[in-house]
Amino acid sequence: MSYFDAASGAPLHPIARQALLAALDEGWADPSRLYREGRRARLLLDAAREAAAEAVGCRVDELTFTSSGTRAVHSGIAGVMAGRRRIGRHLIVSAVEHSSVLHSAELFDVTEVPVGRTGAVRAQSYADVLRPDTALACLQSANHEVGTVQPVGEVAGVCREAGVPLLVDAAQSLGWGPVEEGWSVLTGSAHKWGGPSGVGLLAVRKGVRFSPQGPADERESGRAPGFENLPAIVAAAASLRAVRAEAAQEAVRLRELTERIRTRVPQQVPDVEVVGDPTHRLPGLVTFSCLYVDGETLLHALDREGFSVSSGSSCTSSTLTPSHVLKAMGVLSEGNVRVSLPMGTPEEDVDRFLAVLPGAVRAVREQLGAAAPSAVVHEDTLVVDALGKRCPIPVIELAKVIGDVPVGGTVRVLSDDEAARLDIPAWCEMREQEYVGEEPSERGTAYVIRRTS
Amino acid sequence: MSYFDAASGAPLHPIARQALLAALDEGWADPSRLYREGRRARLLLDAAREAAAEAVGCRVDELTFTSSGTRAVHSGIAGVMAGRRRIGRHLIVSAVEHSSVLHSAELFDVTEVPVGRTGAVRAQSYADVLRPDTALACLQSANHEVGTVQPVGEVAGVCREAGVPLLVDAAQSLGWGPVEEGWSVLTGSAHKWGGPSGVGLLAVRKGVRFSPQGPADERESGRAPGFENLPAIVAAAASLRAVRAEAAQEAVRLRELTERIRTRVPQQVPDVEVVGDPTHRLPGLVTFSCLYVDGETLLHALDREGFSVSSGSSCTSSTLTPSHVLKAMGVLSEGNVRVSLPMGTPEEDVDRFLAVLPGAVRAVREQLGAAAPSAVVHEDTLVVDALGKRCPIPVIELAKVIGDVPVGGTVRVLSDDEAARLDIPAWCEMREQEYVGEEPSERGTAYVIRRTS
Repeated sequence: MSYFDAASGAPLHPIARQALLAALDEGWADPSRLYREGRRARLLLDAAREAAAEAVGCRVDELTFTSSGTRAVHSGIAGVMAGRRRIGRHLIVSAVEHSSVLHSAELFDVTEVPVGRTGAVRAQSYADVLRPDTALACLQSANHEVGTVQPVGEVAGVCREAGVPLLVDAAQSLGWGPVEEGWSVLTGSAHKWGGPSGVGLLAVRKGVRFSPQGPADERESGRAPGFENLPAIVAAAASLRAVRAEAAQEAVRLRELTERIRTRVPQQVPDVEVVGDPTHRLPGLVTFSCLYVDGETLLHALDREGFSVSSGSSCTSSTLTPSHVLKAMGVLSEGNVRVSLPMGTPEEDVDRFLAVLPGAVRAVREQLGAAAPSAVVHEDTLVVDALGKRCPIPVIELAKVIGDVPVGGTVRVLSDDEAARLDIPAWCEMREQEYVGEEPSERGTAYVIRRTS
Repeated sequence: MSYFDAASGAPLHPIARQALLAALDEGWADPSRLYREGRRARLLLDAAREAAAEAVGCRVDELTFTSSGTRAVHSGIAGVMAGRRRIGRHLIVSAVEHSSVLHSAELFDVTEVPVGRTGAVRAQSYADVLRPDTALACLQSANHEVGTVQPVGEVAGVCREAGVPLLVDAAQSLGWGPVEEGWSVLTGSAHKWGGPSGVGLLAVRKGVRFSPQGPADERESGRAPGFENLPAIVAAAASLRAVRAEAAQEAVRLRELTERIRTRVPQQVPDVEVVGDPTHRLPGLVTFSCLYVDGETLLHALDREGFSVSSGSSCTSSTLTPSHVLKAMGVLSEGNVRVSLPMGTPEEDVDRFLAVLPGAVRAVREQLGAAAPSAVVHEDTLVVDALGKRCPIPVIELAKVIGDVPVGGTVRVLSDDEAARLDIPAWCEMREQEYVGEEPSERGTAYVIRRTS
């Protein structure tokens, strides 16, 4: 098996495993107790905090261990919004943040900053929406679905000028290196860098007004209630240090491997769009979308071939809407595949993936393409009734009939699948046809396309 | 070393360790993913939930894994209070709940039900304070500081009649067996039964109105956000099953050992009060308080002798006020020692503890007794100025001078230590002297004692 889904969670780093085992023996007791076992646990906790703070680039007393990256984000946003409630309830996030940021932000008056087609924000977009009542801005260090690295330093500069703190969700990048200067609050997640699950990081710069929410608790400066998950914390800190030591060299190697995927996939698979920034990106992550392919079927086909990847398509059993990231970028979500290589991925595994992928995509396309299109000519346009059909069927049917209308003629695709709203315009862009727009229809929506070539 | 603080956290059970190691290899991936590693993780999670639900005595879909017992309590209380917000904001708790319950309850309109001298509530006390706007009642299954088992079934009956759900914090008892019937919400903590830290249980009966609070999240039915800490969850469930298999036999053995402590300590150490219910109590937990002893000094003395115990005294570096549990029971907090034996504690360790304790207490008393009392006769009463002196000095000075006034005469102890408010009346009860009451004084409080024998 080749596990290519490190962005969801990396397998446990050998150093994390070693540290966890040692800490299970030495660090299971309550670090707030005065007896020997408690003092020993306290020493381990202090050492872990020191190591993690050094890696994050913050003071020891600025760093809290939480029970997950999601919890770090929830507590970080809630704490700043409460601490700065006199300023206001306005919050700025990018449209491509992790769901933990978006769901936290929903509870306030939120403005989403748009991204370009590569998934990156512009600092100016933050400047444009800053308001006197803006209490917080949030920006990920790098995107979890397409790997695009965000201009954190520039956005931090804009925020600093306005006196607004910036929370950086560094979950995807922390293993690779510290975040650019200028952040006020930083969050991370240990199992993304090869640490154990059950540990998140929350760093809050001194001077940032912060008021922990929820019931009072004396642990972790009141910012993370409950008994410290000490063995896991020790393992998290040890593995962060270990992956950082390997990061520079491994980044070069993985970047070469993902570059190979970026280049070869469009050569070997027709109708593919590689998404995300080609240069400013995480070393191990590459994402592409394949026209006329159902995400879930492709995932299963790759799984049978021994590859574990994830998908931002809507057609997977775990989701019914396409990824909000792909949507915000305005790129194709159909047949979406995210490859995120764990550190240490052998080159052969990537080559085997490249060898297997074209056949897998072809097989899925053949399987789906069998459906007979239900197109009828209605006055001077062709109408495709794809109601009740899930992606990628609407796009497949559109592609089948576009040749049946003359250049200048239009096709109306009737669809009630939310993904069509994203995928039909994306298809038009890829195929260089004109997307005219959408119109309400008796059932679902009519998407209008004009043949231009 | 003999670790006698299982009520804080038990060392990892061998089965938990085995299960954790296996799950680190097999269960590190995201259980919501469709690929092989994800499906394997999902199977492990489902199996763990089934095992834990069986031990708790609930349906699989009623059980959520949280990141700690404290989180389970916070989420449980917040969820019910939000789900039943139309009923009202009134909440009933016992005065001896764990701090996680009390801190959660603070956020609402809370009534504390008193306890008797053994630490137990009476069901009638709950009935007395139920109101039309009572949304929730909370009661621990057994107390964490004195081991007293609470009448959960009876209180559940009272609540059921009033249509009020009962949340039972079962952290201290879940390893010993299921909670009596009638609860609506149940919480637990894995590291209390020998599981790893980082895992709590939250069970919510079908039909209880429950509205998870905080940002939305798709994990664990929305009741515990963040990536599941799967290896730890697997270990928690496996160890719960394992300790339950040993529980009946081990309970008999530990009960005999704690009974030995209950009997022998007062025989071998003068001026000791054993607290908590002598019969309805946890098998492995016994608590006593020693007059004229400073909690922290005694803890250090016992630590040097190789015993790790905890204390509810105010004089420990981790706390400045005496335990709210001892306060609610109205018992002595001075020189308080909680012995909580982990499963498998060897008999010899307990016997060695009993051999060491009298000397340790004597040494601390000698050390503290050296202070010269600053008593002056003021009109017809003796005044002891213990201002600025921490417990147990005020009580030590009182004991020294009580013989200097005639029977019927009074002693006024001036103290600004909060613990005196609890310990001086408790001393009077133990020494059969009359506690007249307290009066405000220029600085601190004057505690008035009449010599009766």
